Amino acid sequence: MTSDFLKHLRDTLGDDIVETDAGNIAPWLTDWRGVYKGNAQALVRPRNTEQVAACLRLCNEYRVPVVPRGGNTGLCGGATPDASPANVILALDRMNQIRSIDTVANTMVADGGCILGVLRRTANETDRLLPLSLAAEDSSQIGGNLATNAGGVNVLRYGMARELVLGIEAVLPNGEIYNGLQTLRKDNTGYDLKQLFIGSEGTLGIITGVALRLQAPSRVRAVVLAAVDSPHQALQLLRLVFGACGPRLQAFEFFTDQCLDLVLSQVEGLHAPFSDRHPAYVLIELADTANEEALQALLEEVIGQALEQELCLDAVLSTTLAQLQSLWRLREEISEAQKADGPHLKHDISLPIERIPDFMQSAEARLRTAADDARLFIFGHFGDGNLHYNVSRPLGADRAWAHEWEERIADLVFDEVARYGGSISAEHGIGQLKRSAFHRHKDPMQIRMMQDIKRLFDPNGIMNPGKLL
Amino acid sequence: MTSDFLKHLRDTLGDDIVETDAGNIAPWLTDWRGVYKGNAQALVRPRNTEQVAACLRLCNEYRVPVVPRGGNTGLCGGATPDASPANVILALDRMNQIRSIDTVANTMVADGGCILGVLRRTANETDRLLPLSLAAEDSSQIGGNLATNAGGVNVLRYGMARELVLGIEAVLPNGEIYNGLQTLRKDNTGYDLKQLFIGSEGTLGIITGVALRLQAPSRVRAVVLAAVDSPHQALQLLRLVFGACGPRLQAFEFFTDQCLDLVLSQVEGLHAPFSDRHPAYVLIELADTANEEALQALLEEVIGQALEQELCLDAVLSTTLAQLQSLWRLREEISEAQKADGPHLKHDISLPIERIPDFMQSAEARLRTAADDARLFIFGHFGDGNLHYNVSRPLGADRAWAHEWEERIADLVFDEVARYGGSISAEHGIGQLKRSAFHRHKDPMQIRMMQDIKRLFDPNGIMNPGKLL
Repeated sequence: MTSDFLKHLRDTLGDDIVETDAGNIAPWLTDWRGVYKGNAQALVRPRNTEQVAACLRLCNEYRVPVVPRGGNTGLCGGATPDASPANVILALDRMNQIRSIDTVANTMVADGGCILGVLRRTANETDRLLPLSLAAEDSSQIGGNLATNAGGVNVLRYGMARELVLGIEAVLPNGEIYNGLQTLRKDNTGYDLKQLFIGSEGTLGIITGVALRLQAPSRVRAVVLAAVDSPHQALQLLRLVFGACGPRLQAFEFFTDQCLDLVLSQVEGLHAPFSDRHPAYVLIELADTANEEALQALLEEVIGQALEQELCLDAVLSTTLAQLQSLWRLREEISEAQKADGPHLKHDISLPIERIPDFMQSAEARLRTAADDARLFIFGHFGDGNLHYNVSRPLGADRAWAHEWEERIADLVFDEVARYGGSISAEHGIGQLKRSAFHRHKDPMQIRMMQDIKRLFDPNGIMNPGKLL
Repeated sequence: MTSDFLKHLRDTLGDDIVETDAGNIAPWLTDWRGVYKGNAQALVRPRNTEQVAACLRLCNEYRVPVVPRGGNTGLCGGATPDASPANVILALDRMNQIRSIDTVANTMVADGGCILGVLRRTANETDRLLPLSLAAEDSSQIGGNLATNAGGVNVLRYGMARELVLGIEAVLPNGEIYNGLQTLRKDNTGYDLKQLFIGSEGTLGIITGVALRLQAPSRVRAVVLAAVDSPHQALQLLRLVFGACGPRLQAFEFFTDQCLDLVLSQVEGLHAPFSDRHPAYVLIELADTANEEALQALLEEVIGQALEQELCLDAVLSTTLAQLQSLWRLREEISEAQKADGPHLKHDISLPIERIPDFMQSAEARLRTAADDARLFIFGHFGDGNLHYNVSRPLGADRAWAHEWEERIADLVFDEVARYGGSISAEHGIGQLKRSAFHRHKDPMQIRMMQDIKRLFDPNGIMNPGKLL
């Protein structure tokens, strides 16, 4: 049966599209971190949408599982095949053409396999901004970004990937092509089908083309680092800054003094931003199309108000680009500092913003009951309610501590997240990693609705088995 | 059977919720314009979500069709029952409580029956903006606004209703409650089910609760009216203004000289904005959180550049609130002027923005071939690609002209819209009015996908029959 399938696949697509040599396939069987590993009988690398369609049609006919593969930058194993030797990996990397860009309509249409960073630079060259931006942008592909509804550093101002999408072209599991690649801003003609593909992690079809909305460029920036006595004070500061600065507010990042301590001790060339230490810090960035002086003046005025109203303890405003960058490094290098410190248990969670202080108090109390001397590093996109709630071994403990405690601490954190109405996956998705947590914490009725939709789109269950649902 | 059902319904919900008196039901059987009329055996006005659920459970059991009714401000007959005497009208008007508002998280949670204008004013009182704004906002209900994915005057800056929604509570046709009323900004745990309800026109369930995102208030405004020689020039102007002003750009409204002529002749107290007449005009509004002088200066600078680069012919900047309002009246009174002029054939269409000039040329040429001396009034939300493409009888012709030509001209306009990749319904939806046009112009595969989803959610087909699909 399998060899029939492979022969048929080769005859249809040609040898240059279908790779079956085990050695050549091997590098495609793991995720970039090397956490997951699977099997596959073939790697298919189509050059166009019709070839994707032909591949899916055959896989559906022969009931062969398909694993869509973008830039392989995911953190949950969503693009890594499971153990079945029957899998076909369908890689989009050869579909990497920008189909059109328009600076009147502010739209960009591109193949699903285009690298995000390339799209960002291309937009930039036409004096427009593609706001989607994330650490892996020079490897990640836009089709995968949409399939996982990527977040990143600009969500506060521009929203998740979903909010940047005007249209989608996708191939359904039976090989039919969904032609939704439009650039309209308004189209109230029935259900918005494209929304189903966004965030579906390759379980409903393969995104082969995207139409994105571009924004006016952010040409000037202003940054302040504010010290706060608590997450509660940080929230009051957020209210003030948002009300005064509106859409200029580009980042509102939070980190505790434990994070600052770690980053100063583990990363070279960084300096303490204040002469005193404070319980936590907020990094605020404003951005605008023009007029750096006015932006700087606005930020100074707002921070002046914040100090006066006791919404922060102290503040450092950057006045040069070098200062701006070194303030940002205090936040950005936390991940690097964690890596140097050893294995950290990471939880990418989100909460109703106003409940963050209560959650933090309650979660820490529970954590202390379980693992009294664990070290806690909390930071993240506070303005989006998105926390990196990371836990590490007690000082002096063995590195194996993380592995031993991984499941217990994840359960504890996710239970608290659920209790406060939050999400166990803010932006990384479910993939393989969080599948059991998803089934434990998601409303069973919503899971059932998703399973029904999955069956409707993919009755033979060939699309990305073992992921998400 | 029917009387069994009614007895069961009354026993379950009580007499104050279930109305069956024909005289009392009568006012609920037509749309506000009086274009559509239908029948119903009962009017149900629940006080809470559980009562909505109980009603739908029974209707589903007895296979009784349900017509959800919000503020009845739609233009396509979506909330008016069809001719079947079996219909139950389910009105949300008694579910009108604001459940919570939070100015730290910038969220508002409300019952589906809340009046949009009330929500807007409540947000305003807390120094926040609910951007959804439309002519009918003091009658329309937020549940209906979301069920139709309402547009309105702030779409250019803040997007359609869909983009303002964080969560939804809905009752499914079988009476199950979908508990998606969350306020999270990031939640990548599976398919985004709420998207299906938004814009589904009551065919998949009833929206009983909404969680909305609030924005920083727009406290200052600046307005200019620019004269342009063509829609092409208007587009070049749009590119310049958007690039320079970014998120401050709140409105970019277009109208032809024919519209100005009509408004000056039909509405009292308005004056020609320029000493000369020009082919068309663009009204541009900027808004910001603060600093009126800076905003005015920015607009002056940009318009100076536009004149220098020959991206407009002339311009009037408002310097007082009275001037600002009188410039806006030239655009806003067009609908009133049309009403005074007699019946106009209206088409709420959208196009890929960059193709508007070609569409306008091509559509007019075809129209002239069919009805040489018809009068054309084109205006709308140019920055969204949304045109009101309205046609009226030749000068001197009988008012019956509109009725005679209605279908032919709609076909002609929608054919051209389809040819340019546009939408036959930008923001008003399909309802009863555009159902045949929808089936004629929408991709058959997408219609089939919608029908499949409809069957999945509503296997007995009880929800709002005869609408949309």
